[in-house]
Amino acid sequence: MTRKRIKNFSLPASLFVLGVLLFSNFTNAQAAPSEAPRNVIFMVGDGMGFGQVKAYRMYADDPATDIIEPLPVDGLMVGTVATDSIRINCKGLEAKCTRDPYGVTDSASSATAYATGADTVVGRLSISTSGEIMPTILEQAARRGKSTGLVATSQITHATPAAFGAHVISRNQQNDIADQYFDRKLDGKPVIDVMLGGGLQYMQREDRDLVSEFRSAGYEVALDSSELLAMKGDKLLGLFSPKGMPRAWDRDDKVPDLADMSRVALDSLGRNPKGFFLLVEGSQIDWAAHNGSVAGVVSEMEDFIAAIRVVLDFARKNDDTLVIITADHETGGMSLGRDGTYAWNPRPLHGMKATPRAMTLRYLAGEESLADIVAENVAFKLTVSEIELLNAAAREEDPADEAIAAVFNQRTHTGWTSDGHTGVDVPLYATGPGSARFHGVMQNEDLGRVMWEVFLPE
Amino acid sequence: MTRKRIKNFSLPASLFVLGVLLFSNFTNAQAAPSEAPRNVIFMVGDGMGFGQVKAYRMYADDPATDIIEPLPVDGLMVGTVATDSIRINCKGLEAKCTRDPYGVTDSASSATAYATGADTVVGRLSISTSGEIMPTILEQAARRGKSTGLVATSQITHATPAAFGAHVISRNQQNDIADQYFDRKLDGKPVIDVMLGGGLQYMQREDRDLVSEFRSAGYEVALDSSELLAMKGDKLLGLFSPKGMPRAWDRDDKVPDLADMSRVALDSLGRNPKGFFLLVEGSQIDWAAHNGSVAGVVSEMEDFIAAIRVVLDFARKNDDTLVIITADHETGGMSLGRDGTYAWNPRPLHGMKATPRAMTLRYLAGEESLADIVAENVAFKLTVSEIELLNAAAREEDPADEAIAAVFNQRTHTGWTSDGHTGVDVPLYATGPGSARFHGVMQNEDLGRVMWEVFLPE
Repeated sequence: MTRKRIKNFSLPASLFVLGVLLFSNFTNAQAAPSEAPRNVIFMVGDGMGFGQVKAYRMYADDPATDIIEPLPVDGLMVGTVATDSIRINCKGLEAKCTRDPYGVTDSASSATAYATGADTVVGRLSISTSGEIMPTILEQAARRGKSTGLVATSQITHATPAAFGAHVISRNQQNDIADQYFDRKLDGKPVIDVMLGGGLQYMQREDRDLVSEFRSAGYEVALDSSELLAMKGDKLLGLFSPKGMPRAWDRDDKVPDLADMSRVALDSLGRNPKGFFLLVEGSQIDWAAHNGSVAGVVSEMEDFIAAIRVVLDFARKNDDTLVIITADHETGGMSLGRDGTYAWNPRPLHGMKATPRAMTLRYLAGEESLADIVAENVAFKLTVSEIELLNAAAREEDPADEAIAAVFNQRTHTGWTSDGHTGVDVPLYATGPGSARFHGVMQNEDLGRVMWEVFLPE
Repeated sequence: MTRKRIKNFSLPASLFVLGVLLFSNFTNAQAAPSEAPRNVIFMVGDGMGFGQVKAYRMYADDPATDIIEPLPVDGLMVGTVATDSIRINCKGLEAKCTRDPYGVTDSASSATAYATGADTVVGRLSISTSGEIMPTILEQAARRGKSTGLVATSQITHATPAAFGAHVISRNQQNDIADQYFDRKLDGKPVIDVMLGGGLQYMQREDRDLVSEFRSAGYEVALDSSELLAMKGDKLLGLFSPKGMPRAWDRDDKVPDLADMSRVALDSLGRNPKGFFLLVEGSQIDWAAHNGSVAGVVSEMEDFIAAIRVVLDFARKNDDTLVIITADHETGGMSLGRDGTYAWNPRPLHGMKATPRAMTLRYLAGEESLADIVAENVAFKLTVSEIELLNAAAREEDPADEAIAAVFNQRTHTGWTSDGHTGVDVPLYATGPGSARFHGVMQNEDLGRVMWEVFLPE
């Protein structure tokens, strides 16, 4: 974390209006030297700390073999990222802000560090502490004639992808982010070539239909899995849910996996001889961890790891591709082991037909008992005390989430310290040309800066 | 973790008697090729996970500078260690045992993996699952004419050091371990040249005085810091407390730091032209974490990091030295962030005059109120509710520990999931010749095997 000495500052209120921004701050770029990677694929497991990775490794292990099967990332571990960020408490844009050096970051600030190479205030997207637009690596790649893409299982306007393609004071301005995806033009065209994820409701609104606008601008549009898989062009917009996509274990055939979306994005972007920048986010590892849901974490880790396999397969065939995989922060203080028990047991997670999230939604939507819903979706028999615990939960979101999480946390021996983010370093994996620059413990903005230097040298 | 297919086995009861063992299973060794490191220094932060490291980095940060100062290990991070171990539930040595593949390890099993390159049952020290003596890297180094040393802040007969120099069915056999340190001979002399740590009571007992026996065998003996610093020889025994040494922040001038002990060990061992193997353990990071004591963890991390500085300084001057730094497991599920608070605050830990451990011991020994004891030893003013919390604690060890820990955990926002060990991977740092063999995610027994291959090639 770079500490700015400026402790008090104000921001002009006009920054709230960021609808259409020009790329005037870009300078002419030189051709990259030959050792620079042609392509960069940056993958973020949102909220993915060492606990989340380990839980999935143990879940995915084949107990019939003599080893714990390694994950595809294990051999690529090169260090960790310190996700410390400037956490500034601001009351309104004009108010004085005070700096807290020991704050724990959020996805917006951390993704900004990756996208721009510099820290900013929590909640802000690629706008500096002093209110200036911060150019992003995706935008600069586009400026150099490379193709660009954002793939996520959250809405595509969510904090992590948005930090690469938009500039807003608050990550909550999701309609503004969607507008910027279309309105921020380079050579008269939208900057981002491929956008695949959730978030239809932010694109197709009463006040504006960006889906139609993108279509008119030459984008292919997909709204379900079969339409995604039929995509052939260079400009792709895929929106597979109103907001975030369903969890991996809860998707029907109409909703693609992160691996499907990554494959389609790579097929398209990979055709540009000048290369591409692609962000792929496993967005909901974080959401599951906020709920203290080990089953949800494993569902989303499975989805993310499958996408990693697709990306690494592409990188093997295209050896001018740098792949960097990390997280924006840890979520939940997740640990394998709780309350003095020396074990962690993945078995209760096997054979599940739905995630706790889906069970809660079904509970809220109907009149079934929560214990019946859970019993139907797991491969183990609930105990009497588990049934009592589940049926004591009010028909409201938080109590239902918590009751189901308690069953799985007890059975697996999963512990949590928080329903928010934590400050522990996160894993860093890298492979491909330039990957030697990524090693040891890196501050998140340093990782962003080095990624930029390696990919887009002056 | 290597999974043995043998699920049921028995052990001969005669293995309980392991007093004097011969090195008959050692074969003649060839000279090491020139690329092999002459010296290996293996450093273990017992219980040191990513939370423990991060807490110390934030505590040690200088808030007057623009950066979070890196720790000396940060640039040396090369991967993580998976500390999974065979956890076997055995009822007595002759009984059938059942294997639990998802058990969380202990210091004995994990140190055995490092010392021998193979897994064993939890609680056992360098004896295999089937009851056989497992040669250790320290013993094999001695066999090749290298010097050997054990340095720890626990008693020197505790699990981690003992795995390198003794072979017992139970880590609790500390008298047997002490006996083996003297009785296991190579060319008529004890195998371990330098032993520095706590544990006088296991060496000087009613039934046997090993201190005298070591002295008669040519060892210099030190019982306090000044005697340690005056040591000049090649055979050193230093015992600075009856059992474990006091925590770093609680030591008086008579008790050396881990850095002092490491320096003396290196001065002595470094004189052997054939090189040496040295284990250095920051033993009590684990003990503090078992108590959920963030102040204790920071005290012991400070001690361990200072020793790391000494070791790295030695390695810089002796570039034929391989240094490997890791942990045997994580303890406590420690995280920076709890209960939804997005911050971690090291400030309450600054200016402390004693650790919570010392405060508890003083409380148990006298009649002072716990709040008065804590107030005297911290640089902040206790709140009314903290005073009430502290004074409500019974004058017993666990309630006092817990009350003090609660104050610091709340003030710093430190979270814990367990008072035991957890299964999350731990950090791996390496530098020096052969360090390129250590990277990615390594199982603990693979790390031990590779360390052996690099240091003592066939």
